[in-house]
Amino acid sequence: MTTKKNFGILGGDFRQIHLAEKFLDIGKVFLFGFDKLNDNFPFIILDNIYEIIEKSEYIILPLPETRDGIHLYCPFANTEINFDKKIFDFLSKKIIFGNLKKFTEYKENIKFYNYSNTEEFQIMNAVPTAEGAIKIAMSEENKTLFGSECLVAGFGRIGKILASRLKAFRSNITVVSRNSRELAWAKVLGYKQIHLDNLVYEIKNFDFIFNTIPSAIFTQQSISGCKKNVFIVDVASNPGGIDKKEAEKLKINCIHALGIPGKMFPKSAAKIIYNSIEKIITEENL
Amino acid sequence: MTTKKNFGILGGDFRQIHLAEKFLDIGKVFLFGFDKLNDNFPFIILDNIYEIIEKSEYIILPLPETRDGIHLYCPFANTEINFDKKIFDFLSKKIIFGNLKKFTEYKENIKFYNYSNTEEFQIMNAVPTAEGAIKIAMSEENKTLFGSECLVAGFGRIGKILASRLKAFRSNITVVSRNSRELAWAKVLGYKQIHLDNLVYEIKNFDFIFNTIPSAIFTQQSISGCKKNVFIVDVASNPGGIDKKEAEKLKINCIHALGIPGKMFPKSAAKIIYNSIEKIITEENL
Amino acid sequence: MTTKKNFGILGGDFRQIHLAEKFLDIGKVFLFGFDKLNDNFPFIILDNIYEIIEKSEYIILPLPETRDGIHLYCPFANTEINFDKKIFDFLSKKIIFGNLKKFTEYKENIKFYNYSNTEEFQIMNAVPTAEGAIKIAMSEENKTLFGSECLVAGFGRIGKILASRLKAFRSNITVVSRNSRELAWAKVLGYKQIHLDNLVYEIKNFDFIFNTIPSAIFTQQSISGCKKNVFIVDVASNPGGIDKKEAEKLKINCIHALGIPGKMFPKSAAKIIYNSIEKIITEENL
Amino acid sequence: MTTKKNFGILGGDFRQIHLAEKFLDIGKVFLFGFDKLNDNFPFIILDNIYEIIEKSEYIILPLPETRDGIHLYCPFANTEINFDKKIFDFLSKKIIFGNLKKFTEYKENIKFYNYSNTEEFQIMNAVPTAEGAIKIAMSEENKTLFGSECLVAGFGRIGKILASRLKAFRSNITVVSRNSRELAWAKVLGYKQIHLDNLVYEIKNFDFIFNTIPSAIFTQQSISGCKKNVFIVDVASNPGGIDKKEAEKLKINCIHALGIPGKMFPKSAAKIIYNSIEKIITEENL
Repeated sequence: MTTKKNFGILGGDFRQIHLAEKFLDIGKVFLFGFDKLNDNFPFIILDNIYEIIEKSEYIILPLPETRDGIHLYCPFANTEINFDKKIFDFLSKKIIFGNLKKFTEYKENIKFYNYSNTEEFQIMNAVPTAEGAIKIAMSEENKTLFGSECLVAGFGRIGKILASRLKAFRSNITVVSRNSRELAWAKVLGYKQIHLDNLVYEIKNFDFIFNTIPSAIFTQQSISGCKKNVFIVDVASNPGGIDKKEAEKLKINCIHALGIPGKMFPKSAAKIIYNSIEKIITEENL
Repeated sequence: MTTKKNFGILGGDFRQIHLAEKFLDIGKVFLFGFDKLNDNFPFIILDNIYEIIEKSEYIILPLPETRDGIHLYCPFANTEINFDKKIFDFLSKKIIFGNLKKFTEYKENIKFYNYSNTEEFQIMNAVPTAEGAIKIAMSEENKTLFGSECLVAGFGRIGKILASRLKAFRSNITVVSRNSRELAWAKVLGYKQIHLDNLVYEIKNFDFIFNTIPSAIFTQQSISGCKKNVFIVDVASNPGGIDKKEAEKLKINCIHALGIPGKMFPKSAAKIIYNSIEKIITEENL
Repeated sequence: MTTKKNFGILGGDFRQIHLAEKFLDIGKVFLFGFDKLNDNFPFIILDNIYEIIEKSEYIILPLPETRDGIHLYCPFANTEINFDKKIFDFLSKKIIFGNLKKFTEYKENIKFYNYSNTEEFQIMNAVPTAEGAIKIAMSEENKTLFGSECLVAGFGRIGKILASRLKAFRSNITVVSRNSRELAWAKVLGYKQIHLDNLVYEIKNFDFIFNTIPSAIFTQQSISGCKKNVFIVDVASNPGGIDKKEAEKLKINCIHALGIPGKMFPKSAAKIIYNSIEKIITEENL
Repeated sequence: MTTKKNFGILGGDFRQIHLAEKFLDIGKVFLFGFDKLNDNFPFIILDNIYEIIEKSEYIILPLPETRDGIHLYCPFANTEINFDKKIFDFLSKKIIFGNLKKFTEYKENIKFYNYSNTEEFQIMNAVPTAEGAIKIAMSEENKTLFGSECLVAGFGRIGKILASRLKAFRSNITVVSRNSRELAWAKVLGYKQIHLDNLVYEIKNFDFIFNTIPSAIFTQQSISGCKKNVFIVDVASNPGGIDKKEAEKLKINCIHALGIPGKMFPKSAAKIIYNSIEKIITEENL
């Protein structure tokens, strides 16, 4: 890209810092909401969000825009900012990149581009999620993945990528799903497969369980059949797929990890966001 | 194995605890040197090392037997034990499994079996070492292995296994070696290869460097050519292959990890030791 | 399956012979349309198609049912059989397994189950297709796949499986597609990717080209840019993706392979059909 | 390489043609022993072997130099040439690249460089051998490698490479060996392993058997335990590892393939020879 434009980055976590670095190559970058970090950034930090919006052609909203539905997601800001009609009015003449799951009522009045809902973005984002799941499993356990029995629940984007990475450790991988297409893919890619209906009979075999299915798969009955020293990593979005109370009661190691890309791999996650925004700018001729 | 014998385990780290658990299936187990751990072990803990030796047919020495050349390696013991002629005299009628790199003068008077010097043991032990190197790289870095440029220095046991695991993350792997056999293997297994003589010209490309060569490969000249945010994991035995002073001066992230199997994967490491001892007992008809 | 039923297999190629063998385990098998083969089959061969239909509860139609739209597909029969209303009337009381792309007008009057249109079937069938494409490439060429540059056009079922197999030979794989989802998958699975729009600039690099896209991808312009000794395997359904006239003119090696599973791996293809029919019988309680 | 020298290529098979092509880039090439081929070669073809030797600085001998111990290996020559003292006298002032297993008595008087006995060459040459074994298995069988049970006998160079390629087809691979180092490697690389002593009990499970061990492994007893429709590819050097008479008696499909690189992949094999010679010239400053 050659466009020399101003980018206004409003709030967000470490990903936005790395994102800002990348945008520096193609324009000026204004940053809002990082006053808790005392780093010597090469960006222009302004305290006034309206000033930043005014000075920028492109506005980047964080992922997510809000946690509480009211304030802009700004974990590194000292003060909270209402993300309300007043801001959206200011945004109306700009090109906005974001996700905006919550503020749908304002979407129609702004030039809004969703950088995170393309299948491409979601496939790319499944990579750090899968890598993070393995990172968690490795860092918590004193047994090798090599020779272990691993269960991957769900064989969508994350499940497929996760299994392809785990395989290299020569762990024995079983995919569980209720979807016959997913089970067929598991078969042709060389994994063992079990239908979800049979999970309860097989669950005793696994040393590591990775869940990607966002529904109550690992019920009391399943969990009570687990090995005592099983380790469960749940990366499914809230509420996850594990009966956590039951897991706790049985003293089973279980970690529910949300937002892995942003938390564990902010730099790589930023690159994925950058590529997505860059592609939109190019394709839409912005 | 069906032999109901007594096993005396003298000193060592967590591996010995897991080893003791495994021997429980085939005999009685006496443990010495773990009084710092207050666990409720199913083993017979005795304070008197001589009593343990007397009651056991098989004696398992730790890996290593000593760190300082004088005392038995007993990180979990409250008091230090001299590993001296007196103990070796007691050991003379027993079957001893150990490594005994240091106490060669005593070896001839005992029925000694080295459980760690077979190629098989060393291949198996390279697995947790390689996995641990990846674990370190993952836990220290905020970028994914996916898409990263990884250098594997040395393509012996650890290098081969390490590369085969890294590959699954779809990192780009280059092997550096001075050995034409190793470079040919790297080629047929699908990795890029560079000769050690050319390392200095290429080193700027790498995000992760894994060293397995126990000699001064990464000199001041090489290291000063590294990316600023490179991450180096050195698993070569002391003194490692990295000029640590230089790395520190340049503020390069560099971790020299020794004894990975025992420290990171004690359970898996114990299994490897167990298999080795079991095989010796079977093959030697002990 | 425990149902002791009679299976009538009407026409088809070698797959049906292997299929018949498999059904022998769960019932009696009648075969029609294989009188050219003088094998000593353990099946009941009857000359009268109506008699077979009458004696069978389950009827298996071949894949495809017809080549010319008129006759039953019977390459091993000495005489041609009209596949017409009269036969369909006879079939009306039976349970029919087939594909029936052509005779849609008769479908409503029979208890018809399509064994080949599930995604599961198509995923499983992509395996022999991919393996066959490699088989063709290997058998025709005097250079190794190792170290070669391979282009896989299209990254759907066949493309994904094909690339995963080719990779093992340590060939360098590039995926070409116009679909951003497919290109993202290619990336996370570790392949190079090029957009179809850029194919013409890159095509000169490839030693092997595997096409799975059933539209005119490899036009005169692309093909004329190929290496002289490129080898092209086209597995896309008719008319394929290659401008064959142009390829011929330029003396480029190009094989359009249709119906690979049935022709090259009848035994494995039969097993896939069997599994599909078995699953329908179980799930539908037939 | 920049040396403009004359290369004399004496005898050999298709590999030498491709080798000649490669040497054309760095010098003039004289060819002897290809008069049966009527190709329009860009090389200088001379009928007189002595003239070629005289005009060349470098002489390339074929692989092998002789089949019968008397004549130069010249499958494409119309007349046989004695490979005797007279020729070796002529060769004495030249730089000779070859293998010379047979004519050891002459070696001392010539400047001889073996291009095929380095470990590097043998590793590289194992690649086409392994690929060829798979090519044979694929071309002879009507069942897919996918889902098949494959036995790889021996886990040296060829066995390791073969298994790494077969794995991609998602066949189930078992390595058989009597060598505990090889079995350990098989384990860490993710294959099942059986000790040679137990082969006879397990052999009934395999669909494909690939032998790389040049001694009588597959005796009457083993072979008689095979599946009826097993397919055996033996790539071990003469006499191979299969009791061929027994295999024939039992009507078991068995192919003993020798010299795969030269026969199946002459172009790739030539490149390996070229790289080896080029490396010698560079390292020895010839």
